[in-house]
Amino acid sequence: MNKQITLAMGNGGEENNELISKIFYKAFKNDILEKSEDAAVIQNGELAFSTDSFTVSPLFFPGGDIGKLAVCGTCNDLAMMGAKPKYLTCSVIIEEGFATRELEKIVRSMKKELENNGAVIVSGDTKVVPRGSVDKIFINTTGIGEIQKKGISSNNISEKDVILVSRDLGRHGATIFAAREGIELSSDLQSDCASLTHQVQALIEADVNITALRDATRGGVSAVLNEWAKQSNICIEVEEDALPVSQEVYGICEMLGFEAVNLANEGTFVLAVKKEDEQKALEVLHRFENSDNAVQIANVSDAYLGKVLLLSSYGTKRFLDTPTGELLPRIC
Amino acid sequence: MNKQITLAMGNGGEENNELISKIFYKAFKNDILEKSEDAAVIQNGELAFSTDSFTVSPLFFPGGDIGKLAVCGTCNDLAMMGAKPKYLTCSVIIEEGFATRELEKIVRSMKKELENNGAVIVSGDTKVVPRGSVDKIFINTTGIGEIQKKGISSNNISEKDVILVSRDLGRHGATIFAAREGIELSSDLQSDCASLTHQVQALIEADVNITALRDATRGGVSAVLNEWAKQSNICIEVEEDALPVSQEVYGICEMLGFEAVNLANEGTFVLAVKKEDEQKALEVLHRFENSDNAVQIANVSDAYLGKVLLLSSYGTKRFLDTPTGELLPRIC
Repeated sequence: MNKQITLAMGNGGEENNELISKIFYKAFKNDILEKSEDAAVIQNGELAFSTDSFTVSPLFFPGGDIGKLAVCGTCNDLAMMGAKPKYLTCSVIIEEGFATRELEKIVRSMKKELENNGAVIVSGDTKVVPRGSVDKIFINTTGIGEIQKKGISSNNISEKDVILVSRDLGRHGATIFAAREGIELSSDLQSDCASLTHQVQALIEADVNITALRDATRGGVSAVLNEWAKQSNICIEVEEDALPVSQEVYGICEMLGFEAVNLANEGTFVLAVKKEDEQKALEVLHRFENSDNAVQIANVSDAYLGKVLLLSSYGTKRFLDTPTGELLPRIC
Repeated sequence: MNKQITLAMGNGGEENNELISKIFYKAFKNDILEKSEDAAVIQNGELAFSTDSFTVSPLFFPGGDIGKLAVCGTCNDLAMMGAKPKYLTCSVIIEEGFATRELEKIVRSMKKELENNGAVIVSGDTKVVPRGSVDKIFINTTGIGEIQKKGISSNNISEKDVILVSRDLGRHGATIFAAREGIELSSDLQSDCASLTHQVQALIEADVNITALRDATRGGVSAVLNEWAKQSNICIEVEEDALPVSQEVYGICEMLGFEAVNLANEGTFVLAVKKEDEQKALEVLHRFENSDNAVQIANVSDAYLGKVLLLSSYGTKRFLDTPTGELLPRIC
């Protein structure tokens, strides 16, 4: 491994996986951790438990802010294991001199999003560090959720499943990049930042046969599909034309040479459901504004185990790899 | 409130309490949070749940490092609610360019201390931020513990209790200050950084009638006693001469004008136990190297409700207040 930690090691792609497996998993080795799910499943499968630290620049962006993000991010990780978020902790590290009014605004966003999830913050920690020791504010949230549907796991996907995505891709990454670089957009592009609890609860209530769920954050849909292909030892065949991308995001990608499938999302999830339940799943998702363009994007095969294939409309095939490098635009 | 966040607002004292109550508690208001215990008690009193973010400079200090600190700190918060630490999450924010070898060293310390507590890390998150966005590394750990003895609470202390402390005071604060300022000590002063799980388990097994426990971290023993006096609406009368302080810590305090009772500890806890169990509690504590000088330091009265009195050997009395200001030496 590199002698120094690089930005690429933190961005959800290949180098990030290497850092996690060679340093953290190696030392902390245990059955639960090694499942590499979005949240750990503990207490005989009754509870899900997940952590995330949030840093974003700018702190306030179209469609959200770091407070909303910090609650959505952890609640979504719990939801992806079929759990209903219940208790969160909140730990903040604030730079000396940070505006109290901005902190209050962030905390209000958190409160609103907690209510939306039906969750409460039960324990917290507040540190203030000298100017220059942190970039404005970092927020960690860690959550416990009650699992409503057991057995959801990214280790069990098979050819009996189809792969869906809940909405158009890359809004968060594109929004943060545009905001950071001061790109003025005539469009009203905004982050997809949102809680997914209600969608997941509705899928469970409709008794959709869910195999796996994962929100496509850092590394985007590419990272999720590659993790799934490896974890379940399957080949995922993606129809390139089926990948939903909005005009606004497509424009930014064209301009800057990004691929929407690699961009971060904060309210977009990938689903593996049993083939016979595809329509039922899509019907449920289409009831929600945040997933009214949910669509099937891929099938599972045994063509190249552990790999993701991208099928173009011209009949060509190429591998869709886990993103590598600094994955510009950095979103955290 | 001040328009800007100040260092004093993060240091465990009066201003920290104001920030927490006026911004966080106000927004996140709920019964569990308002109990202000070291850890939240959830799931019908079965589980304790607590979070802490760790920043320390230097990262490696006599008696420990940020990794050991990050595991001890959260495990101790769980232990203080009578819980046995079971599952932890670990979320790190690393500065680009940080030495991989130092990260490995930190992770090894975490592993060792996890084993000591019988706990495992089941979920994690790794972020890397650009140079200058964070001071080397921040670690958040959040833990779940199984409560072995229900009903421990800092809201129920009464005149039937006596107050003990598990060891001599102020080692962590004094050590960090000396290390940071490059003060060469001829003594072998080192931080008290240690897990308290075994002591607490032994107290529970010996059936000591424990009312409350709290580890005296930021703000030291002064902060704990003041919180307890307010939460239980009692007066705590401390015998100044009974406060155990090592020669090394006393020397640093004399030199720099600190009071050991205000200094941070990372493996020292305050106990409120029923009077008749004082000897039993001390006998248990004295079995452990880290608490072989445990001693009674205070009684509970109704003299000044919500206040802490310091009684000198000359018969004078003064209030021991919650520390205020920047509480030099900053330890995080």
